[in-house]
Amino acid sequence: MKPYVLGIDIGGTNTVFGIVDARGNVIASSSIKTGKYTNFSDYLEELYTEASRLIESNDATDKIQGIGIGAPNANYYTGRIDNAVNLPWPDLPLAQLVSEKFGVPVAVTNDANAAALGEMTYGAARGLKDFIMITLGTGVGSGIVINGQVVYGHDGLAGELGHLTVKRNNGRQCNCGRTGCLETYCSANGVARTAREFLEIRQDPSLLRNLDIDSITSKDVYDAAIQGDALAKEIFDYTGTILGEALADMTVFSSPEAFILFGGLSKSGELLMRPLKEAMDRSMLSIFKGKPKVILSELKEADAAVLGASALGWEAK
Amino acid sequence: MKPYVLGIDIGGTNTVFGIVDARGNVIASSSIKTGKYTNFSDYLEELYTEASRLIESNDATDKIQGIGIGAPNANYYTGRIDNAVNLPWPDLPLAQLVSEKFGVPVAVTNDANAAALGEMTYGAARGLKDFIMITLGTGVGSGIVINGQVVYGHDGLAGELGHLTVKRNNGRQCNCGRTGCLETYCSANGVARTAREFLEIRQDPSLLRNLDIDSITSKDVYDAAIQGDALAKEIFDYTGTILGEALADMTVFSSPEAFILFGGLSKSGELLMRPLKEAMDRSMLSIFKGKPKVILSELKEADAAVLGASALGWEAK
Repeated sequence: MKPYVLGIDIGGTNTVFGIVDARGNVIASSSIKTGKYTNFSDYLEELYTEASRLIESNDATDKIQGIGIGAPNANYYTGRIDNAVNLPWPDLPLAQLVSEKFGVPVAVTNDANAAALGEMTYGAARGLKDFIMITLGTGVGSGIVINGQVVYGHDGLAGELGHLTVKRNNGRQCNCGRTGCLETYCSANGVARTAREFLEIRQDPSLLRNLDIDSITSKDVYDAAIQGDALAKEIFDYTGTILGEALADMTVFSSPEAFILFGGLSKSGELLMRPLKEAMDRSMLSIFKGKPKVILSELKEADAAVLGASALGWEAK
Repeated sequence: MKPYVLGIDIGGTNTVFGIVDARGNVIASSSIKTGKYTNFSDYLEELYTEASRLIESNDATDKIQGIGIGAPNANYYTGRIDNAVNLPWPDLPLAQLVSEKFGVPVAVTNDANAAALGEMTYGAARGLKDFIMITLGTGVGSGIVINGQVVYGHDGLAGELGHLTVKRNNGRQCNCGRTGCLETYCSANGVARTAREFLEIRQDPSLLRNLDIDSITSKDVYDAAIQGDALAKEIFDYTGTILGEALADMTVFSSPEAFILFGGLSKSGELLMRPLKEAMDRSMLSIFKGKPKVILSELKEADAAVLGASALGWEAK
């Protein structure tokens, strides 16, 4: 076993990569712009050049055991990316192409599964065998761990809990083409949509009315709530309640020991956690009441994506 | 390894038990009345007497490898039954008591998990590693298999998909104390409730109006639908649609290769399957569209409970 892995997190905007040791120390990291390369082979060339530079300058040449990649829609079984609307390339065999270029084994999975692996290997889920990672970012992602293993499902694509239907009728339009998905309510975008709905429908005063309604962000709502704005707090109540009800529903599936929340919105503190826990407890099937914990990720935001991806590098074959 | 296991299915009314060989042949079976014994030690004495008689008369003395038991709320990890409202006894350490009495290892799980194990060992799920068993009986039960293993969750009680919330507002009251659970709509009782609602709210003629509304059963609805009764057919449309939408939601969790339907209602043929498949396809997240199969159990109804429980007997330690 060689001492390092390379973790690569491919996002729509940036690709972050880092050299990680077996204890989860990020030895060094760097990034390139994903969106700049509409041609994948140009992208791969640049990634190889920059990663090789990082590896050489950290005396890690020939010390990389494997590469783990987290990327939207990346399939653990096939190694492919298909239908990834946020990436500039057509469908492609990602693991194979990267492995051929770098000459080391590569494993890929989607970003939320990578986050779950990272949390289990280095973070808040160390020692847990049954947990569900919920990433509250622009959208809502999830990584499900049962019996110590990430759930990939029959086709490698399991764990899309952001697309659980939480509102069956008159639900919000989702990017997936369906309506009422969890992520249309409980993501950063969802919070901004709730703000716009509340401001349009209601008349009560709010600090948010000083802002351009079409460009309100979840950060704006957070800032207003922290200043005591009643309407902004209600937006968090609404968001937390829907998420708490959804976590109760997820519990009847796999009865996890804990839900681990990750991403910008998860740092809203009691504004989100109080209504979330109240709704979760109220909606919980009695045999599970009081059992699943809700805890926050322990991975440093800056390192989390790379760490998560790198955890997969150890299992690459 | 000894050649037989004893499978025991404990229901609220009857306890059925049988001697099963490694190929899933039920060598012999018998039953006692569960409800007759309010004292568990009397029940266990009678079960032991009758099962011993069956074992002796089939030349199986000292040939029983283990005992598997399926029972409401039975916990695979603890071996206990707790809060089983349909059974006449208080909470008790079922596996331990039965093992002490019979002198062989005993494993227990709930009835739907047992059904999933039976289907995987002897039935429609042979060769499948990722599937979800849905039992459509008086209530709705489920057994989830991921990567060839039944999902027991952190506490041994996972897989209660009958209590997924399918109607968030104004949902029907469920026996579990919550509202809007899947089983209030898609069980035999649920179909009867739908019939009563439709008959009260609507005015159109129906064969069902010839029956006493308070004692209508799902069988009555089926019989009327088979005779072409429009309202009865709509009741199946309503039921199948809700179930199909729920199966689509379950798919985002574990991306199963198949759903296996079991129990009386699953034998309603196209009356249920057509609306179910249409709704499932319509509600399915695009990456999973057309993937999960919906198939019917291949276990003989009479033997299924015993076979399911017996499958667990092989792993008892």
